[in-house]
Amino acid sequence: MRGGCLNPTCQTIILNPKEIPKKERFLTERIKGILRKRLGEEELSFGLLFLRKIPEFLRKEEPFKVVLLKEGGGLKIVDCVRMEEPVLGMAIDLGSTTIAFYLYDFEKQSLLEEYSILNPQVKYGEDILTRLHLARSKEKLLELREITLASLNQELQSKGGNSIYFVSLCGNTAMTHFFLGLPIMDLLVEPYVPVANWFDIFSSKEVGLLINEGGRIFIFPSAGAYFGGDLIAGLFYLELSKKENPCFLIDIGTNAEVVLGNKDFLLACAGAAGPALEGGVFKSGCRAEEGAIHQISIHPSQRKLEFATLGGAKPKCLCGSAIIDLLAQLFKFGILSPDGKLKKELWPERIIEVEEGLAFIIYQDPQITLAITEPEIKSFLRSKGAAFSMLSLLCEKVGLDFSAIEKFYFAGSFGVNINVNSAVTLGMLPEVALKKAEAVGNSAGLGALKLLIQWQIEEVKNILHSITYLELNNEPRFMELLTGAMFIPHVNLELFPQVKRIFKI
Amino acid sequence: MRGGCLNPTCQTIILNPKEIPKKERFLTERIKGILRKRLGEEELSFGLLFLRKIPEFLRKEEPFKVVLLKEGGGLKIVDCVRMEEPVLGMAIDLGSTTIAFYLYDFEKQSLLEEYSILNPQVKYGEDILTRLHLARSKEKLLELREITLASLNQELQSKGGNSIYFVSLCGNTAMTHFFLGLPIMDLLVEPYVPVANWFDIFSSKEVGLLINEGGRIFIFPSAGAYFGGDLIAGLFYLELSKKENPCFLIDIGTNAEVVLGNKDFLLACAGAAGPALEGGVFKSGCRAEEGAIHQISIHPSQRKLEFATLGGAKPKCLCGSAIIDLLAQLFKFGILSPDGKLKKELWPERIIEVEEGLAFIIYQDPQITLAITEPEIKSFLRSKGAAFSMLSLLCEKVGLDFSAIEKFYFAGSFGVNINVNSAVTLGMLPEVALKKAEAVGNSAGLGALKLLIQWQIEEVKNILHSITYLELNNEPRFMELLTGAMFIPHVNLELFPQVKRIFKI
Repeated sequence: MRGGCLNPTCQTIILNPKEIPKKERFLTERIKGILRKRLGEEELSFGLLFLRKIPEFLRKEEPFKVVLLKEGGGLKIVDCVRMEEPVLGMAIDLGSTTIAFYLYDFEKQSLLEEYSILNPQVKYGEDILTRLHLARSKEKLLELREITLASLNQELQSKGGNSIYFVSLCGNTAMTHFFLGLPIMDLLVEPYVPVANWFDIFSSKEVGLLINEGGRIFIFPSAGAYFGGDLIAGLFYLELSKKENPCFLIDIGTNAEVVLGNKDFLLACAGAAGPALEGGVFKSGCRAEEGAIHQISIHPSQRKLEFATLGGAKPKCLCGSAIIDLLAQLFKFGILSPDGKLKKELWPERIIEVEEGLAFIIYQDPQITLAITEPEIKSFLRSKGAAFSMLSLLCEKVGLDFSAIEKFYFAGSFGVNINVNSAVTLGMLPEVALKKAEAVGNSAGLGALKLLIQWQIEEVKNILHSITYLELNNEPRFMELLTGAMFIPHVNLELFPQVKRIFKI
Repeated sequence: MRGGCLNPTCQTIILNPKEIPKKERFLTERIKGILRKRLGEEELSFGLLFLRKIPEFLRKEEPFKVVLLKEGGGLKIVDCVRMEEPVLGMAIDLGSTTIAFYLYDFEKQSLLEEYSILNPQVKYGEDILTRLHLARSKEKLLELREITLASLNQELQSKGGNSIYFVSLCGNTAMTHFFLGLPIMDLLVEPYVPVANWFDIFSSKEVGLLINEGGRIFIFPSAGAYFGGDLIAGLFYLELSKKENPCFLIDIGTNAEVVLGNKDFLLACAGAAGPALEGGVFKSGCRAEEGAIHQISIHPSQRKLEFATLGGAKPKCLCGSAIIDLLAQLFKFGILSPDGKLKKELWPERIIEVEEGLAFIIYQDPQITLAITEPEIKSFLRSKGAAFSMLSLLCEKVGLDFSAIEKFYFAGSFGVNINVNSAVTLGMLPEVALKKAEAVGNSAGLGALKLLIQWQIEEVKNILHSITYLELNNEPRFMELLTGAMFIPHVNLELFPQVKRIFKI
């Protein structure tokens, strides 16, 4: 560590007061002189905190560290600290449900901690639309901003506070607006216009983050109302725009967002494909949480159904991957028809009449019944059809066949849990995805972390400007594609030759 | 005003929401599009306040103004306001005794108000050295900073508050340190090292000024511990560094600071020549304030002494110009010898014995006696000798004769009140000053105001870097010069041929 660290976002340089020549008639000029020897002719400026602290450090005659942040074209000397003080950064993925934190030590070049908390906004509404409607009132917008800040600040203070010099934050467009207190009226009506795409690097004070008072924050830009900074961060992490062959980045959460691209292009679209796979649409559905059934296998001939819950807990709900698993198997055994109808006679113990029509019972105890109804299956088919149609549309737009795709990257927890086989069986993904799918975890958070480590703001800007965003509402072809894709696996079975062969449809 | 103002520091541009094309998918891009048409390819960035306010302004469909500040190489859009809101700047001369304010309307291009208040630091000590010693304690430094800020903020809030977007502030090195809360330990011991010379343009929030939250502040740099931002501002105002022929800028206040220069060089020195001319050294002395005697004429043969007070008030004290007037006349009538002795026998009613020696009584009533003692006269002679020696030294350094000087500019209130004739008679100024002296008022404050109006930060930087500062302590020649200059008018009468001729010395 001797000599400091040369991280491009946040550097430290160790100075020994005894070795600083005293020729210059200003303390800052003396510091500049010695830093120039290490940094060359980079433009140097001084923050107020540093100016207030430096005289005492120079008097102590013990080595100390100066902390420098990238600013504009040069470096800003923001602080001086004792040798033993850490110099940290925090990457934050401000998700609408959970907030993920990545605490990074610039000097040790290591990730110290990675964890997540529940977004406190959830109490204002599970889905973003509820919160957006609420935030039409200035007071509520301010309230959303304040609880978000309070929650972030609690973490930032407990994980380093003044030792944190840089925050790299990504979130979808609504999250970014809430965080900065930007009015969201225009996000609620067509043509869904965010206030800003690119943000200046703000000072921590300006934004209200309780980190070092000379600290700064980079917020990933949005490419559209439904294509937020989290996706840009994901693209930055995956380096889609540097790939030779085209790849898909698929992020299915509250929304479904898909990007197709390589070094030559980035084409994106987003739609409400997601909700059907999470809580909200399915009465028994939920996100991947403790007690969620995430795997199901059925043996209809033996009248047997087995499942696994997350954390091995008592079953509480069904997460998206379990629904996909179940429906794929029901289809496989002929219990579910291509148009989403349950065949009661094939498993009457589990398929029962309820108010909404037929329902398949997955689990029942005196407290709860976990089931899936025919209207819910319809809704799922629409969602999975939308996902497939989005993939198809993007390929069509650039004249590519699915076979030309090198990778199908799945972001988020959905990607980690999904059984690709089941998804292909249902026609949610094309067959080629079987060998090319790769779960990449929280690519948004990892992108924010990558920015802390590698800086590369220009690369983020390039990604932002390379993206062509297709507004599905303006794409009649999307509706055509969707019509055929709402069946299992698809109206056109030639698109799913393996499924056709295996199931002998 | 239609179309806004194009002041280089702070611009406004009038936008009509109805005329803003709605093609772009971000509000900021729409604004950028229309601003580009007015501003060309200047780099534009957006402040948080603007982002928070713009959606509502666009919805109102009424013309409004956007406010832009120079930042880095481009322009930052910091605010949007209703048409009737003013867009202001404030120049501040943070003097150690008085603080002068200049409220400027960027759009009307006019100075709205110019006034001054007492520096609240005075209660911590009339002279700067007392305050500097006090501020060695962190708590006291903070206290000095806080009372200064509170005082400035009271004015800023009452004169515009949020409508003030830019503050241009100058002050001597100690004042700047107090204002920013910079430790002053190194200003108190040789080699008198200030923390910084050049300051970044700070945000109002960072510094603690209660102006517009997107507002910024420029602080004039120091060229040394005893050559502060007030003098740099004065040089900037007078454009000394653009003159063809060399000129003097002479600022006699608590300290005496002298700069000699033209387009080719700027040579400066400073010394404690001032105190003897103000309160502190003279028991009866004071600054130019109400009740101060500022003019004196004597008629010894008629045993008559006439004087005028500032504001026509009851006499309270003597300001520097009156002392110069009086001593010059006492010398003229032979009552004061070249080495500063009073001749009691020539005016026994007024020249009396006191504890310190002889004293000349100027005014007496049952409450006060205004007088000047021989030790005080000695002290004055040392001060006037120092002033003359500083002028001589600077000329010698560049090989110039006084006759080559085009102008003797006097800054500050001392310059306005001084009787140049009297000063020359006493040998404080060379004889050529008689025709070349010019009082320039508060050139520091006017320099700060000029920056608001014309920006030209680079010019200020050039001035800073052009200055060569002579440390008088390191100049043995100064002591030589001083020895001869402590007499009236000088040991070498050839330097004052007119005085010699008139007084037939």
